[in-house]
Amino acid sequence: MLVLKAIISILKLTSKRLGWRGFLVKVFVWFLESRIFGGILLFFLKRNNLIHKLVTHAELEDAPVYVPLHPYEDLKEQEVKHIDSELSPHEKVQQALDCLPLPSQQSSFHSWKILDYSKAYSSGEITPLMVAERFIAAVRESSKPPFQMSFFINCNEEDILKQAKESTLRYERGEPISVLDGVPVAIKDEIDCSPYPTTGGTKWLHKVRPCKGDACCVMRLRSCGAILVGKTNMHELGAGTSGINPHYGVTRNPHDPSKITGGSSSGSAAVVAAGLCPAALGVDGGGSVRMPAALCGVVGFKPTFGRVPLSGVLPLNWTVGMVGILANTLEDALIVYAAINGPLPSHQPTSPLEVPKLYFPMLQSTKSISAIKLAKYAEWFNDSSDDIRVCCSRALDLLCSRFAWKSVDVTIPDIEVMRLAHYVTIGSECTTSLSSYLKDMNNNSEQGWDARVALGVYGSFSSQEYIKAQKIRNRQMQIHSKIFAKADVIVAPTTGVTAYEIKDDAMNTGELDYINGAALVRYQIAGNFLGLPAVTVPVGYDKAGLPIGLQFIGKPWSEPTLMHIAFAMQSLCISDYRKPKVCYDLLSN
Amino acid sequence: MLVLKAIISILKLTSKRLGWRGFLVKVFVWFLESRIFGGILLFFLKRNNLIHKLVTHAELEDAPVYVPLHPYEDLKEQEVKHIDSELSPHEKVQQALDCLPLPSQQSSFHSWKILDYSKAYSSGEITPLMVAERFIAAVRESSKPPFQMSFFINCNEEDILKQAKESTLRYERGEPISVLDGVPVAIKDEIDCSPYPTTGGTKWLHKVRPCKGDACCVMRLRSCGAILVGKTNMHELGAGTSGINPHYGVTRNPHDPSKITGGSSSGSAAVVAAGLCPAALGVDGGGSVRMPAALCGVVGFKPTFGRVPLSGVLPLNWTVGMVGILANTLEDALIVYAAINGPLPSHQPTSPLEVPKLYFPMLQSTKSISAIKLAKYAEWFNDSSDDIRVCCSRALDLLCSRFAWKSVDVTIPDIEVMRLAHYVTIGSECTTSLSSYLKDMNNNSEQGWDARVALGVYGSFSSQEYIKAQKIRNRQMQIHSKIFAKADVIVAPTTGVTAYEIKDDAMNTGELDYINGAALVRYQIAGNFLGLPAVTVPVGYDKAGLPIGLQFIGKPWSEPTLMHIAFAMQSLCISDYRKPKVCYDLLSN
Repeated sequence: MLVLKAIISILKLTSKRLGWRGFLVKVFVWFLESRIFGGILLFFLKRNNLIHKLVTHAELEDAPVYVPLHPYEDLKEQEVKHIDSELSPHEKVQQALDCLPLPSQQSSFHSWKILDYSKAYSSGEITPLMVAERFIAAVRESSKPPFQMSFFINCNEEDILKQAKESTLRYERGEPISVLDGVPVAIKDEIDCSPYPTTGGTKWLHKVRPCKGDACCVMRLRSCGAILVGKTNMHELGAGTSGINPHYGVTRNPHDPSKITGGSSSGSAAVVAAGLCPAALGVDGGGSVRMPAALCGVVGFKPTFGRVPLSGVLPLNWTVGMVGILANTLEDALIVYAAINGPLPSHQPTSPLEVPKLYFPMLQSTKSISAIKLAKYAEWFNDSSDDIRVCCSRALDLLCSRFAWKSVDVTIPDIEVMRLAHYVTIGSECTTSLSSYLKDMNNNSEQGWDARVALGVYGSFSSQEYIKAQKIRNRQMQIHSKIFAKADVIVAPTTGVTAYEIKDDAMNTGELDYINGAALVRYQIAGNFLGLPAVTVPVGYDKAGLPIGLQFIGKPWSEPTLMHIAFAMQSLCISDYRKPKVCYDLLSN
Repeated sequence: MLVLKAIISILKLTSKRLGWRGFLVKVFVWFLESRIFGGILLFFLKRNNLIHKLVTHAELEDAPVYVPLHPYEDLKEQEVKHIDSELSPHEKVQQALDCLPLPSQQSSFHSWKILDYSKAYSSGEITPLMVAERFIAAVRESSKPPFQMSFFINCNEEDILKQAKESTLRYERGEPISVLDGVPVAIKDEIDCSPYPTTGGTKWLHKVRPCKGDACCVMRLRSCGAILVGKTNMHELGAGTSGINPHYGVTRNPHDPSKITGGSSSGSAAVVAAGLCPAALGVDGGGSVRMPAALCGVVGFKPTFGRVPLSGVLPLNWTVGMVGILANTLEDALIVYAAINGPLPSHQPTSPLEVPKLYFPMLQSTKSISAIKLAKYAEWFNDSSDDIRVCCSRALDLLCSRFAWKSVDVTIPDIEVMRLAHYVTIGSECTTSLSSYLKDMNNNSEQGWDARVALGVYGSFSSQEYIKAQKIRNRQMQIHSKIFAKADVIVAPTTGVTAYEIKDDAMNTGELDYINGAALVRYQIAGNFLGLPAVTVPVGYDKAGLPIGLQFIGKPWSEPTLMHIAFAMQSLCISDYRKPKVCYDLLSN
């Protein structure tokens, strides 16, 4: 045992300095999966991660709160439009259009928006079929050397062309369904979408869990006429933050293909950044939409837990994940949100949640929003890299001065405890949801090395640890509720580091880089564990030219205020947006 | 390992035939708590209990439902009175009085009701102080040989007399607070009640968790003028069904002191049966109110999960327990329910539950209730002892014919799966809630032997098992929702056996009698795991003269229909009620 302890110590040090990749990861998996050493290793591992101290042995009087469903309060938000939640998706999209600002600002680099597509189609300038053909050509090109971007896991050209032809016919008849008609939208391969298998980034899951049709959110997009252009690459099982997938390739960052995209919705962020789609769907269980959005320089929006049905999304967890939107602009995020929001149409007898009222923000009147208070936890700025700290602080100062809003200093205690409690929760739920499928997997070697590590650790938690994590959830919900009594949103850098380099020896094994992993995930957890809405907006670049995101975390159900603030931030930064190195133009010639 | 397996097999056989008591229990605890054998033993034990097969390896598509909070539907119940849920406890009690039937039926044995006390006090026939003195004398007598009933864990004579004097003064001034003024009500020692410690049936818990004041339900009773007459005996930590407590004595059955009361609210059922209080509070986490009620021949009522706040109740679990009422008659249960129901007065920010509308049943019009359908699962009648089967079937037939109601045959699948899932749930939550207290316990030997077994098993569940149990909860909620589309209530014998003998060698160690334990608990679980309201009514006696209860399990929030049906059943049986062997009369001279 002492020998093992020594080995672990050495490995720990190595890990802290350099991260593990390649052979070291394999050795670690071998230990972890061994009957004899596995248990001992996990014990030390959990102790190392402070889980024993902060979760297992935590003394908490709070009752457990298992699901972050917040009671609905009518929030008296400014400049909003009430939307009848019974409307169909395309009717909601129409309502969202009335909320959009007049086109005014232009970025130095102009990425095409949903309305640009819609106008070009309506004017007959171009057809959805032509866009689909350009899209297919672009995806082919991006897949080959020198780029090998690995944007998609599956992309069925025939299916894309079929949808595009139908859309083209609708425009020819003068009957497009909505502004989304003919607009390419990509779907993370964690969400069911016909005719594709849902791999979850694995080589095996779709074989034992066949996709039986569109997920609810995808069905809603389809009903608006959007062209579903394929299933984007993701970190295997969503169990990591790098976006390095050993089976389908490393999703590369359009701003610098030698850098990661972040994960787990890696491909969805990358295709939006690369101009292949104005918007894409992701799933955010621990920052998985916001992290890659920030690293790829796009908007990432995760609504309040409960706003979008999870039906048809791989059940990798039940209480922290939410469908999220990646888009080039906040306006496009609002349009897609308009299409996919709303509870399941069918009766859900076991959810006691009252359906909250739905409001959209009137983005044309953002300037008249008054007395907004932004909670700033200085530690979060200081814990980030220098470039991020400087860039995010400047953005926040600019926002406050331009709109006469106030920044309020707050302290958010026990962040590390919350991160661990979230980890115990998502891990326990993931291993439970996969348990019956894992049984049917042919061979452990069908899985990537870092996914094997994750599943090994995920399966080790006791019911007591899980319930204690839910007590921590309750405590943090109370802590955040007090912060929101003082401020409208919490503002933080989205990530503590920008996109880092893809190391050669990580490409097959993934990497166990807890330093960079923690730096990416640090500010994400409240959005997931407490079910809060959150959005990231690109606010600048580091010295290497890699994008930096600023995150706003809102009160439960307060999407309108959150979007107003994010839109205001975007309006101050958009003129500096830069063109990614890998970028396609599907509209102009 | 083979030797251990052989030993376990032998012990299993012994257990099935005879149950374990005395020395065998001690051997078992020694194995369980040993580092080396404990894990292996638990593995086989869980396999023996089918937990591995039915819970751990269950394949379930259902999402987990962690808390049995049902969405509120306005149920269109017949003959109900709407009650403003904002009323104070004594105002609600006043409203309940308007719902009571005119006194008409007399049992051959007449136990005093709350209204009998109230009338006698108001007429000046007797004072609360005189009743308190008689109560104290009766408790003293019952504690000594030959009975040694062990009704109470703590009973502070001075405090009782103080309350009684204050109540007497109120009557002298002509200003009683409510019909509960001066009425003795006993509280299970799992519920905080000043000036008593809350032992939970242990010798140690109150030392590390001091009672800081009345629980919310107790405070409400006190505000109605009720005299809180002490803390009743219970199964240690509520972790058993026999009511045999090694520290405070075996609570004996007033109908036959050589028999058990059932548990865990043993003392609360026994004091009501013995005429010491017209009503008492219990807590029902796995039938703990209904089982002892049935075995002692009294009414036991567990409202829908969420109807009574759990604030100030020992947090032995969070998602299956509910405060329940033990009373001699359904009418008295309604009065106490009127006093204690309603959510916490303070804002609960983390519960998304809409407060349901409150209705009380107009019991004087029960005869005009029409078209009631009672779901009967024949297996539950057949699985009970012959006397219970015959008695309960006859009672149900009588009820249907007298009121022209219909019995509908149904099948309730996977009852055993639900029982195990409930066991995993309550066990995991109990061990979590106690974990920080257990740490402060001086010595394991402060605990009873059977409590040590329970805690040993409770602590062994994984997070995966806990979450799977919640998937089973969801499935059963759906199954029951379908049954309730066909019927208004489910009817079943309350227990599969009547009160059984207290064996001498069980008195110090408790007993591990899984045959009798399962027979007692078999029909309880839906009430707890699915949060359904349930009530047991005495409907007859077995050949040995021991009481038999019939249970009605209602739709969520449908207490009024449930009480109407239970009251109708009581009205058909009450004339045959027999006087217990140990019984006190506090009102007549």
